[in-house]
Amino acid sequence: MQVIGYGTQEASATLKPLKFNREPVRAGEIGIEITHCGVCHSDLHQARNDWENTVWPCIPGHEVVGTVTEVGEGVTKFKVGDRAGIGCMVNSCQDCEQCDMGHEQYCTGPKSCTLTYNGPKKPDGTNSYGGYSTAIAVREEFALTIPDAIESQHAAPILCAGITTFQPMKHFGLKEGQVLGVAGIGGLGHMAVQIGKALGAKVVALTTSPEKREAIEALGADEIVLMDDKDALKSHAQSIDLIVDTIPYKHDINQYLQLMAAKGQIAVVGNFLGFEDVDTATMVFQHVGITGSLIGGVPDTQEVLELCAKHGIRPQVEMIEMSGVNKAFERMQGEDVRFRHVIDMASLKNDSDAAESATRVDDPVRGEVVS
Amino acid sequence: MQVIGYGTQEASATLKPLKFNREPVRAGEIGIEITHCGVCHSDLHQARNDWENTVWPCIPGHEVVGTVTEVGEGVTKFKVGDRAGIGCMVNSCQDCEQCDMGHEQYCTGPKSCTLTYNGPKKPDGTNSYGGYSTAIAVREEFALTIPDAIESQHAAPILCAGITTFQPMKHFGLKEGQVLGVAGIGGLGHMAVQIGKALGAKVVALTTSPEKREAIEALGADEIVLMDDKDALKSHAQSIDLIVDTIPYKHDINQYLQLMAAKGQIAVVGNFLGFEDVDTATMVFQHVGITGSLIGGVPDTQEVLELCAKHGIRPQVEMIEMSGVNKAFERMQGEDVRFRHVIDMASLKNDSDAAESATRVDDPVRGEVVS
Repeated sequence: MQVIGYGTQEASATLKPLKFNREPVRAGEIGIEITHCGVCHSDLHQARNDWENTVWPCIPGHEVVGTVTEVGEGVTKFKVGDRAGIGCMVNSCQDCEQCDMGHEQYCTGPKSCTLTYNGPKKPDGTNSYGGYSTAIAVREEFALTIPDAIESQHAAPILCAGITTFQPMKHFGLKEGQVLGVAGIGGLGHMAVQIGKALGAKVVALTTSPEKREAIEALGADEIVLMDDKDALKSHAQSIDLIVDTIPYKHDINQYLQLMAAKGQIAVVGNFLGFEDVDTATMVFQHVGITGSLIGGVPDTQEVLELCAKHGIRPQVEMIEMSGVNKAFERMQGEDVRFRHVIDMASLKNDSDAAESATRVDDPVRGEVVS
Repeated sequence: MQVIGYGTQEASATLKPLKFNREPVRAGEIGIEITHCGVCHSDLHQARNDWENTVWPCIPGHEVVGTVTEVGEGVTKFKVGDRAGIGCMVNSCQDCEQCDMGHEQYCTGPKSCTLTYNGPKKPDGTNSYGGYSTAIAVREEFALTIPDAIESQHAAPILCAGITTFQPMKHFGLKEGQVLGVAGIGGLGHMAVQIGKALGAKVVALTTSPEKREAIEALGADEIVLMDDKDALKSHAQSIDLIVDTIPYKHDINQYLQLMAAKGQIAVVGNFLGFEDVDTATMVFQHVGITGSLIGGVPDTQEVLELCAKHGIRPQVEMIEMSGVNKAFERMQGEDVRFRHVIDMASLKNDSDAAESATRVDDPVRGEVVS
């Protein structure tokens, strides 16, 4: 399976065309021609090695939608011509307690889950390459069915931005009438606002960007709090039951802690870079928690796709060409995206210059099909 | 109700005899001659204003056991001569959702709960004086029944150290066979080890004090991990379901995060001074949380008293006289306590010098009886 991708072999480089082979489709797997791939802030972090765990080369992309081109022996969920999606994972042990619960992202098997790019969560020296590429193969259990109502360009961001924000709402049992805070209204946050509304919560958008006010109102947020507005922070003190904190860098968590009602939780979904000076007094006095949450398992991802289909929840996307990804990274870093870039992958398929100039890199490993 | 207490009027002073009047016993209240009072690390923090919220004068003590000397009109739970206990609270609104759940410590009423000393949790300018005193009165809903099987000197520490460690085990649903970590094996921690065992958990004691090894084994801990033993930390990585973190000062939480299994929680019960540099990557990748937990409500306090009675769980106490409390504070700060000081309050009652030399201070306010 000859593939062209866009990736980088070092943290300081921009993304360029790379070529490699994917292992052929095996029993239980499907092959997909990728038509759309969302651009996630994690793609930028990983390509630039911000988390100091990048396996090179890095070919990002974990909001993948495409067309099934091949089905392996025994595949039952898909047939050639169907649309299929892939989120952040392509494999796991399928045998541990976490996998049994459908929480493959916390798989306790020997490699944990294998991420769509950057290899197994417990590194074993192998690498995997993501959706910034013309084709991919995956075992069918990790492929999502795209509801007919959702266009591919809108489905792609649900596979990371959607599930990542839905999962903590499900885990912490967000109930109708409760107050959901969404910290950071970008790619993830703009999905969280809509999903929270669909679940019946009162949604308070917490932002540092006054210029996003109209856009946030259009998403359906009940209230908008600017995080430098001391009066607003005071009037919202101890009022929020759950905050989904989508901010993908270090930030002052204490001003969010002040907003939490008794027994509230802040779910951190995008910040791997830590907090400084966490105010435990507020946490103890109000039984408030800060809990990490990593994407979501396959069943929950399918569930959020159906939820989005049912409630008309759609990401706001700006289509770009593959060659525009470096510019997209720059704009994302400058917070100049409203709200998700999605790559039209036909632009790579049809880019003969990219195919010719592509540098050959080692082939990726997606792991055995286990069951 | 003329009372002699031991307290301080400034952060830098030692505790000395003080005298004041408590309001007479009203309808729904009981009067108690205090026979025993535990010495909690919070007493030291509050007296020294470490949390910068002390209301002066400060007369600590919230592990109070005594004999009922008077019952107000309508009291049904107690009669004169009974033993009764008072923990960390003496009042709350009794009308909010949290009070309805029996979680009065998170009362959302206008003053929140009124603490046994240091006044209402939402300060209103009034003060309350604790159990380092000869007598106290309290509405009967906040008084605990001491099971016959438990001696008063052993009952006292259960009213804070016991409930504070039991509550997160109950809240997070610690199940038989799960792994409980106890961080810090002092007054709270030595209760947590015993309570965890009674609930059927495997208990791992996490300590920085190798000299406590034998004492910790005697408490029933299944394993002891020294926090500077890198090999032990490595072999226990990702293995613990719940840590009750009893350490009452700033400490490196990241080495504890590494020990947490997927979806584990660290319940912080004694540290109001914060954390620095919290490693969110570990939290996100493993769905690990840090949640504050404040003492426990009245029904849970009664429950843990019964649990201790049933399972023979007893704090290890060292009896002291009231005049020895400053020395006890020094030893506590030097971690030279195994495991709880309890004051024999007859030593104050019978100290005629203390009564004569006591400085008159303003009378405390315990708040209206609301229902």
